[in-house]
Amino acid sequence: MSFSLHEHSDTIVALATPQGVGAIAVIRLSGKEALRLTNKVFKGKDLEKQDSHTIHFGTIRDGDKIIDEVLVSLFVAPKSFTKENVVEISTHGSSYIVNQVIKLLIRNGARPAKPGEFTQRAFLNGQFDLAQAEAVADLIHSDSETSHQAAMHQMRGGFSGEIQKLRAELIHFASMIELELDFGEEDVEFASRDDLRILVEKLLRAVELLIGSFDLGNVIKNGVPTVIAGKPNAGKSTLLNALLNEEKAIVSEIAGTTRDFIEDEINIGGVIFRFIDTAGLRETTDIIESIGVSRTHEKMKTASLILYLFDLTDTDLSEIETDIAKLEDLGVPFVKVANKMDKGNPNLISTLKTNYPDTIFISAGQKENLEALKDRVLELVNLDKFRTGNTIVTNIRHYDSLMKTRDSLLDILQGLEIQITNDFLAMDIRRSLHFLGEITGEITTDDLLENIFRKFCIGK
Amino acid sequence: MSFSLHEHSDTIVALATPQGVGAIAVIRLSGKEALRLTNKVFKGKDLEKQDSHTIHFGTIRDGDKIIDEVLVSLFVAPKSFTKENVVEISTHGSSYIVNQVIKLLIRNGARPAKPGEFTQRAFLNGQFDLAQAEAVADLIHSDSETSHQAAMHQMRGGFSGEIQKLRAELIHFASMIELELDFGEEDVEFASRDDLRILVEKLLRAVELLIGSFDLGNVIKNGVPTVIAGKPNAGKSTLLNALLNEEKAIVSEIAGTTRDFIEDEINIGGVIFRFIDTAGLRETTDIIESIGVSRTHEKMKTASLILYLFDLTDTDLSEIETDIAKLEDLGVPFVKVANKMDKGNPNLISTLKTNYPDTIFISAGQKENLEALKDRVLELVNLDKFRTGNTIVTNIRHYDSLMKTRDSLLDILQGLEIQITNDFLAMDIRRSLHFLGEITGEITTDDLLENIFRKFCIGK
Repeated sequence: MSFSLHEHSDTIVALATPQGVGAIAVIRLSGKEALRLTNKVFKGKDLEKQDSHTIHFGTIRDGDKIIDEVLVSLFVAPKSFTKENVVEISTHGSSYIVNQVIKLLIRNGARPAKPGEFTQRAFLNGQFDLAQAEAVADLIHSDSETSHQAAMHQMRGGFSGEIQKLRAELIHFASMIELELDFGEEDVEFASRDDLRILVEKLLRAVELLIGSFDLGNVIKNGVPTVIAGKPNAGKSTLLNALLNEEKAIVSEIAGTTRDFIEDEINIGGVIFRFIDTAGLRETTDIIESIGVSRTHEKMKTASLILYLFDLTDTDLSEIETDIAKLEDLGVPFVKVANKMDKGNPNLISTLKTNYPDTIFISAGQKENLEALKDRVLELVNLDKFRTGNTIVTNIRHYDSLMKTRDSLLDILQGLEIQITNDFLAMDIRRSLHFLGEITGEITTDDLLENIFRKFCIGK
Repeated sequence: MSFSLHEHSDTIVALATPQGVGAIAVIRLSGKEALRLTNKVFKGKDLEKQDSHTIHFGTIRDGDKIIDEVLVSLFVAPKSFTKENVVEISTHGSSYIVNQVIKLLIRNGARPAKPGEFTQRAFLNGQFDLAQAEAVADLIHSDSETSHQAAMHQMRGGFSGEIQKLRAELIHFASMIELELDFGEEDVEFASRDDLRILVEKLLRAVELLIGSFDLGNVIKNGVPTVIAGKPNAGKSTLLNALLNEEKAIVSEIAGTTRDFIEDEINIGGVIFRFIDTAGLRETTDIIESIGVSRTHEKMKTASLILYLFDLTDTDLSEIETDIAKLEDLGVPFVKVANKMDKGNPNLISTLKTNYPDTIFISAGQKENLEALKDRVLELVNLDKFRTGNTIVTNIRHYDSLMKTRDSLLDILQGLEIQITNDFLAMDIRRSLHFLGEITGEITTDDLLENIFRKFCIGK
């Protein structure tokens, strides 16, 4: 990556806060001319003469017309997010005002920012590496403790550090091998082939651990796909609502910050459970029945977890046994949930307790014993790996690069096995380094960058 | 208003930017403890030792857990919006993070702000008067040049200044009359009754001018209620879309700031035209026909402007004449719009040009001559009064107070006429002063304040 290629002389502008009505809106500029350009439309102190990290009150004016009274925050290069001059204009939160101010700045020489362009400039100017830049977007979209912590770990360089470490060890060997190539005919061996094998095997284990974390990472990022299965009227939608309402109550304690609920997502212990086809569920489609007909039922194939719910007042033991057998055949983790515990037949309950001691007895309507259900559900998704602070891969691009790294590491091992020549060995090592470098952005192409940053929102 | 009554010792917190996904979100705290409280959860510099109007990078932490990397802006009392200590925390724009940070601040002693509570504190601490505080909300909700300029004029004290001037003149006379009352028996006259009459008449004219501006103010704030009338297939919805699309094209030039369109509102030359029942219009309900049946048709009664649209290829002169006669009877300003000018019968066109020279000939489908139509429409709403920078009353509460002021001014005049005693005269003057004082908030009750500020959004 050549720095001069990416040096931007133009100044970009965008709304940095969400669209809509709020008390304030923040318009962000970045670029060499950010201060001079804002100065042209700002009446107050001379912004170009002020210190970095200071705030100034004044008005934004279009000729004589006052567009707004604003606060202007200054970040003088390189002490800013993008390492360029950055100005943040805090206006009253009206889309009319935001439009007018941005139009005025564009008329005065700024250019509308492309999606993710602020973060892209921060990356290109060396503020952080590519994996960290990508974590910024993940952080903004995180909606649970686990997805937030994974993104935060990545943004603060946890993942990048791990990749860098692997890369550094490999680079050491690469340079040795390249050195051997320089000596060509002389048949020296600076790099012990045995040590290289041990290192590559070690790298392979680390890479495979990261690859293996992707399933968990995916669950953390997108939620655990969950199905509530059960006969019509077993209480499926009552259960879903009971779980939902509790969460709503917690969040709405804080006036003004209640998030919009995606009705089919429930946060349990910091993990998002995404309920599949709960619309159908509301119509009490009998999912267990469908499985009976066809094991490959789409909904069940995509589920990572099934809550098998049955009504103690309306089910006999043989039905339950049949359903459980079917679910065991399916191979998806499931929880046996016995509903209406308060009204159930005591004999049935005691038999179930003996035959299926892991059954969770609840009353969805009375909201009884839901905590036990939540605990079991969390147990099943097994987040221990996450809790210990290990790095989790959440990004499909990183996953792809890691898969390619693994393949080229395997090529090295195979090459060592069959004692291929140094030049081929060096090539395989370079390939491994290349794929690892793609993750952190030490190796990039403009297309790759374009592709990553266009998924960002504008203003970031 | 007693200041000590309203002194707040608690520190309030709220999200100040709109809900939703954006690059950043701003959480605002105000109160004596704002700095100390933020310090407890912020890792970075000691915020209590920093200057006002400075920005500091650091992390917000819940124990060991990093919730976010943030920028903290400090405003030390009284140099802030509320005149209290104010802290603005700029986080990554995730609702999860915003929730976590606000919860953490609440656990550490902050209280969720009520709607408008920041502005209410600014008012109570003398940052501005009540009419100015109300203008802050208007400004945030302004969506056109005219509503924005009216709110800005009011926020910057234009309206308040006018009210203060009227009040000051009246106070002078009030004190003279009260003085006369002190001298009781002695029959002195410090205040010339002729001068008082002249003053009250002058005040009355000013108050009536303000009252008269309310219709215009209402139009500026809420849009001009407009109906497009015409036979089915005259091109009503084509015209509406032609006007709409043009606006959309202008706004979408600025990526990322495109506002959500209310489909039935069109901004023409900085004025919002609100089209009534355009849904019905799409179904080509014949509104003219309905007028024929019943003059009191709801839609027409509420309209301030009618665009009478007829198709030159599908209407004969007698139909047009009949419709125009009906519209003239209705007494609502209307524009005669002849559509499909490119295909119309030349004889009909030339007759219309002679008989109705103010007809606007357009082609909605070809978007021809729409500018002429817009010019005419703007002419009819007559914003000259606004353009000259006069104060416009846009707030129904102010309108009510002005009406009451007028009544009490009329009482003074009547009292002077029938030579009532000084004590009654003084009472009428005090009443006038009271109602004028209500507008700027010199006279307030807690109920009144509660009522005004609860209409604000949270965080403002």
